Parts: sequence; C-alpha cells; structure tokens
Amino acid sequence: MSPDQPPLSRALAAFALGDEPAILDRRGRRLAIPPIVDSVAVILAGNASEAGRASRRYVHAAWPQAAGPGWTSGSDAGLPVELAALINAWMGHALDYDDALPGSGHLSVPMLAAALAAGDAREQPLSGGELVDAFLVGFEIAAKTGMALGVAHYRRGWHTTVTAGTIGTTAAAGRILGLDRDRLTAAFGIAASSVAGLQRNFGTTTKPLHSGLAARNGLAAALLALAGVSSDELAIDGERGLLDLYGLGEARPEFLRTLHEPWAIESPGTGLKLYPACYAAARPVDALLALRARHALHADDVEEIRLAVPKNGLHPMIHHEPKTGLNAKFSMEYVLAAALADGGLDLASFEDAAVSRPAVRELMSRVRLSEDRALRPEDPDALRSSPATGGRVVVELVLRDGRRVEATVAHPKGSPSAPFDRDDLEGKFMTCARFGGFAEEPARAAFDALMELEDVDDVRSVLQTLRPATAGIR
Amino acid sequence: MSPDQPPLSRALAAFALGDEPAILDRRGRRLAIPPIVDSVAVILAGNASEAGRASRRYVHAAWPQAAGPGWTSGSDAGLPVELAALINAWMGHALDYDDALPGSGHLSVPMLAAALAAGDAREQPLSGGELVDAFLVGFEIAAKTGMALGVAHYRRGWHTTVTAGTIGTTAAAGRILGLDRDRLTAAFGIAASSVAGLQRNFGTTTKPLHSGLAARNGLAAALLALAGVSSDELAIDGERGLLDLYGLGEARPEFLRTLHEPWAIESPGTGLKLYPACYAAARPVDALLALRARHALHADDVEEIRLAVPKNGLHPMIHHEPKTGLNAKFSMEYVLAAALADGGLDLASFEDAAVSRPAVRELMSRVRLSEDRALRPEDPDALRSSPATGGRVVVELVLRDGRRVEATVAHPKGSPSAPFDRDDLEGKFMTCARFGGFAEEPARAAFDALMELEDVDDVRSVLQTLRPATAGIR
Repeated sequence: MSPDQPPLSRALAAFALGDEPAILDRRGRRLAIPPIVDSVAVILAGNASEAGRASRRYVHAAWPQAAGPGWTSGSDAGLPVELAALINAWMGHALDYDDALPGSGHLSVPMLAAALAAGDAREQPLSGGELVDAFLVGFEIAAKTGMALGVAHYRRGWHTTVTAGTIGTTAAAGRILGLDRDRLTAAFGIAASSVAGLQRNFGTTTKPLHSGLAARNGLAAALLALAGVSSDELAIDGERGLLDLYGLGEARPEFLRTLHEPWAIESPGTGLKLYPACYAAARPVDALLALRARHALHADDVEEIRLAVPKNGLHPMIHHEPKTGLNAKFSMEYVLAAALADGGLDLASFEDAAVSRPAVRELMSRVRLSEDRALRPEDPDALRSSPATGGRVVVELVLRDGRRVEATVAHPKGSPSAPFDRDDLEGKFMTCARFGGFAEEPARAAFDALMELEDVDDVRSVLQTLRPATAGIR
Repeated sequence: MSPDQPPLSRALAAFALGDEPAILDRRGRRLAIPPIVDSVAVILAGNASEAGRASRRYVHAAWPQAAGPGWTSGSDAGLPVELAALINAWMGHALDYDDALPGSGHLSVPMLAAALAAGDAREQPLSGGELVDAFLVGFEIAAKTGMALGVAHYRRGWHTTVTAGTIGTTAAAGRILGLDRDRLTAAFGIAASSVAGLQRNFGTTTKPLHSGLAARNGLAAALLALAGVSSDELAIDGERGLLDLYGLGEARPEFLRTLHEPWAIESPGTGLKLYPACYAAARPVDALLALRARHALHADDVEEIRLAVPKNGLHPMIHHEPKTGLNAKFSMEYVLAAALADGGLDLASFEDAAVSRPAVRELMSRVRLSEDRALRPEDPDALRSSPATGGRVVVELVLRDGRRVEATVAHPKGSPSAPFDRDDLEGKFMTCARFGGFAEEPARAAFDALMELEDVDDVRSVLQTLRPATAGIR
C-alpha cells in the first residue's frame, strides 16, 4: 500500500457509495440489465434442481419457525433475509447455467441475491434503479477483487465466485442498506474474515452452495457493520489481510485502484450461457449446431466429430463417461453428442436419464478431441480470458458420404462480442421459468418488467408475481 | 494421503461418531467439565460487553421476525439455531476471557455453542452426557486440525479459533444431530469451504465474531449435509483441499491420524483464564500478585516493576498506551500496573474508564519489560506451547526501601498444571453471571448442576433458568 493512498477498504467504500453520473451512467446501467434478467431466470430454474430439493429439506429441518421479509423464488412465505440471500444465490448456480466472467467466476447471481435481500431488509421499497446501481458496483468490486487476488489464487484452488464474490456482495448490500463510508469500510473487513471456498468441492452440490455463501456472507457483513461491529481498515490490503493471505505473494492490488476504467461488465464482459453446461462447452456446441443447421445434418450422417481447442481448453471438461447430469455438464463428449442428436442443448439434456441414452453414448464414441497451440487465447496471462474462452475453437465433421465440413467460433452466443438480443433473453427466461415450475403468464410479465428495470418503483412487486405453478414447489 | 488410509474426512467422521468406552472414558469426560462450565460463564459475561450490545442491534435489524428453538443467554425468546450458535459463541469470546489451547486458539466456546444449538435443533432433549461427548470429540478434532494446519498457517495470519474451530464444531454438531458417517463426511467437506478468519482483525470486535462464525458454520455444515448437500471426501486432505490450501506446504496431517492419543484437552491441555486479558498476561500477573500478597505490598511501596519473559513472549501484547478496555487486554504495562494497584484483575479492570486512571498510568511508567532467551519454552516448535505460555516468567519488584523481591511462574493458575478447583470455577462463574446481569440464585444453581453435567437429563432445562436480572438485557 502506498502511503499517500487510503486503505483499500476505505477506497472501495467511497466507490461503492458514489453516485457521480460519470460512474453510474446510462450506458453502464444498461449493461447490467441482461445479467440481472439472466440471473433471475436461473434462480427460477434452480427450484427444480437437486439443490432446490436440498434447500427445502434444509429450511424445513434447520429453520422450522423461520419467517422474515426475504423473497425467495420458490416460496410464498418470506424468510429471514440472510437465509433468502443464501437460497436464491444457491439456486441460481445450481444448474451451472448462470453467467461467467473469465478469471473471476460466476458473480451476477450472488450480487443480485444479496442486493434483493438487502432491499427486503429495509423499510422503503427497492427501486429498479437502486438495484441496477448496487449490482453494478458490487459486480465491479467482485470482478476486480478476483483480478487483484491474481492467477495464483485461482490456480492454487480457491473458487473466486465465492472468494472475490463476497467482497462484491458486501458492496451491493451495503449500498442498498444505506451504510455510510465508515460502516461500509468496516463491512469489507468483516467480509474479509469470511472469504472461503475450495475448488476441491467442484462437481458436488457444495459448488452451487458457494454462490449462496457469497450472497449471505456479504449481506451479513453489511448488517453486522450496520450494528456497530468493527474491523481493521487494512483487512483488504494490509499485512495478514485478504490480498496478503489469499494472493500468495502475487496479489495485484492495482486492479482495485482502477475501478470502472473500464467496467469489468463491459470489458472483458460477462458471458451469458446459452447452454446449461460448463462455459468451455459453449463455443464447441455453437460451432456444431451451426454446421448441423447449415448442412441440414442428422446424427446418422456423421462419421466423426472432431474438436480442436486452445492449449488447456479441455481442462475443466473432466468427465469422459458421465453418469449423471451434473457430470455431463463437464463432459465435452456428451455435450457434442447430445447437441448433434437433439439439434440443441437445454435443461432436459442434463437430466440423469438423458445422459444414458444408448444413441447418444454411441455418438460419444465418435468424438475426437484435441488441443492446438495455434488456437491460443490472445490473453496469455489469463486475467481477461482463459484457454476455455480465449482464442477460438474448430469443429470438423467427417460425414459418411465422405465430405468434411468445418466451423470456427471465437465468441459464443451470449458472450460480450455476440450478445443475446431480447428474444434470446426471453427464450432463456421462459425456458427457465417453465423448468422451475412457474406459471407462464406472470413469468412473461415479469420478464417484460425486468427488461425495463430502471422504470420499476418496487422490484419486490415484480418478483412476487412469480408463483410456482407446480405442486410440490413451495 | 497414503493409499491404504481412508480420506481424512471419513476417518474423522468415524472418530466423531465413535462410542467405544476406551475413547469416551470417565476420565476423558471429567476433563471436559471445567472448560464447559467456564464457557457458559464467559457467555453470560459477554452479554454486558460491547459485542453483546452489537449483537442485540444486529438481531433487531437483521432478524426482526426471527424465532426458533435456539437458547441464547440473554434472551427469553428462542432464536433460529444457527443464529443462536453465532451469538452465544460471539458473546463467549467478547471479553477475551475464555480458555486457550496453545497453537489452536480458543476452542471451547464455539464447541459448546454449536453443540447446544444442535441439541436445540432436535426433538429429543440433549442430555449432559451427550453434550460432554460431543464437546470432547469436537474439541479434539479442532485442536488436532490446528496442529495439522501447522505453524505456517498461524504465522501467516489465520485465526485458528475459527479456521480449526470450524472443523471441530462440525463434528460436535454432527454427532448431536445424529448424522451417519456418510453425512458427517460430507459435512466436513462443506465446512472446509467455509474456513476463514484473519488475524488482521485482532483488536476489533470482529475477533470475537470469529468464534461465532466457527460455531455457526460448523452447525450449518452439519445441517446442510443432513439435508443432502454433497461435498468432496478429499476436501480435508486432497489436492486443493483444506490442508493443501491453508497449510502452505507445511501441513502435518499425521496429527489428524492420531486422535485422542492423548486427548489434546489433557495434553497440552486447555488453559482457563483467571483474568479477562490476553493469556500472555496470566503468568506475569500471577507472579506480581503473589509478591504483593506475600510481602503485603501496596503500589506506593514499589519503585519499579521488572518483568522478564521468554523470547517473543511479549509478541501479542501490542498496546503500550491503551486507550480502551479492549486495548488494555493486550497491554502488559497496564495489566501489571492495574494488578498492583488493585490487588487483582477482573472484568471491571477493563472498563474504558478504569484504563485512564491517573494512578495506574503513573504506575505503568514504572514497568520495565524484557525478553530473555534463558526463559525459553521447552517446546521450540511451538505446537504445544508458545513463547507466551511455555518456559517461565520472572517478576522482580524494586521497592522504595531498597529491597528487591522476585517470583517465578511457569504455569499460571487455571492452566493444566495448576488447574482451577471447584471454588475457583464457582468464583469465576458467579463473577461472570453478575457482570452479565444474571440473577444470583439461579446462576448458583445452574453452576451446581453443570458441575455434575453427566447427571443432567436435559441441558436446556438448566440453561433456561439463567435469566437476566438487569433491565436492558433482553
């Protein structure tokens, strides 16, 4: 820390509470709408996931008398706000269908969940404009915290969705709760003492729980600071502070000194997922489906599916013989085979029964994967992209009639360079709402309202219309 | 991890759920009674602390409709069990008056708080015998986790009370909740994803909050596992697991393979505090008060107070001009001066007003501190002692009449080698109860019952008699 600079937790508080038009401008605010709408969508879908069922068992057993003002997507009754934040964010990551920011994880869902729950903790209604601003500063701080913690932090085994995410949710919740600069400074220090989450738990249902912990712990830090709990103002950048302990000697605090220049949500930008699978599958599946459509192919026409990705681009796709839908999200063989067989990839593609279909298993045996240095990311330090999202991928199909057809994709649909249009967003929103057991018409009305979020006076009034249509979802 | 050994989380689950008489023997159980009784005492005292006030503001603002079965010391109404665990353990560490295990922190309070709250989450009452057994296995696992994380973990800046503590509270809560081995194995993995707590926050009210987080997070991990949340069974000892990330290459998993041989609560044993200050002050103050009594001295008789401690034995006593009671707990000058002036050191000694008394400030200027290698701990690797608790200290008083008197202390009153007797425990219990605003007679009856804890059929029935006598404590 330079002696002429304020401690980072103080600087972050000043930024998070800022309201200068230059910071929260109209353009910045519009950037926040798609990830917010997308996050609501995946929270709705999560209701019908294994995590959704576990969360209901947990509430039933651990919180039998719980009541409070916190909105949760699957419940008519309100819950205590910290519990609502936990459950909404947990649901939103349950299907691995939420957006991803290279290097910093899945930040939008915990940011939205913490902000909504903070709004429910206040007396006055939360307006759409307030929500957008809080989301934007929280997302920015989380993204830059991820970059500041550095590559070593992620490589060593921490899950940035929750570690970096928690610092951002503190900002989002603190802004909405009306903390002053001193209290928000203290909240960052409290939050720094709750930063945890092991990559070792990837592939288990603790992974989506991490998103819930990011939302709950940031909100709790803000509420505790509001109640007068103190912390050390050097808890982010001091000796034995967050960057010191978790940055492993390679922390880059400068990322937290240069906020919104540009907004991380603009550059590198967050990628919205078209498919409920690991983001590394997005480009290969886009390329395959483009070939399938362009050449009017069926599975029977294809002798072999060849995929080439940048060096290390297959790293997260660890399952080659997936047994469950959760495994299959991390199986490149499965996503390519299922996309070719079905002409698409949706939530139903990752139900356990779908994964064991004999025709798809047969197709999987005809997938050939390779890595190719020539397809490398343009960003070798992987701060703004990764081998799974930088560079480009090539899919080549060898057809039974002897032809070979090929497609190259650098930017998958939903990424900052190929963003969803309104129809794409609406399609995903409605698919998620149906999957989660929500009634069609209120969901469509909520989507329309959320697309004009800045005109909404009371966000809660929009969300409350989202009622489960299916019995069994409380 | 050796290939012929089960994953540590599975081995810990088997140990935590064991009921072999050789493990939970009568002697082991008796060892648990003093720290349990002492922990209840400090939880009661914490009610009247700054943390107690903050906790009530937090509950009021963040949990306005909260209700549940969880007992908390200062409240007539029950709270949700996770919140009760948080608040009880937070209160118990609020005054830095709870016991300390060299190398692994302040483990008894979070263990007790998590166990009590887990009992409240069940239908059947929690018996004293069950509480003792759960406390014992939780304490043991936490203590050995602290040793397994190693010296580097603590030196780097993690607060073992919460990092190691969380693994232990998971065991204590899981045993009481009746988890089977698979569920408790999963619970350890979930808990490993919530291990955090920065020493940077020492000296702020986030430090006692860490104890609360240890209790809440361990209980939550057990409840989440009970609801079916899965985790990786190598989350403790696998690559990118707890020991790998937090042990900084120096983890010693063997400590978690050799549980209860001996019980950590027996050797090195946990030190109960006679004074509500940093444990490094215990021996110097004992020595000074012994001299004061033996020679019938008053402050006016003393020209100079000389203290010699082992190398690094002054390390935690960071405040030389304390301004608040919280500072003063970490000021060697203050504790010696106040003890000489008052003939003792109690909770009132650390109220803010007491710290600024001119007579005491004047005495502080006559304190001379030094470190002496010859007084070194017998345990140079500091796993079972520290410079603040190993070796011995020497206090020399230079009197105005020219005499010099000297006392040496190796083991302070309350330590395993000089344990509290029943009167000592009762004295501290009643002092804490009065300070916390609790009525005298029910407190004394509760003390008597807790001393015979194994005969108690329903622990809750004992604790519920503890009612605040003072208005303002809810």
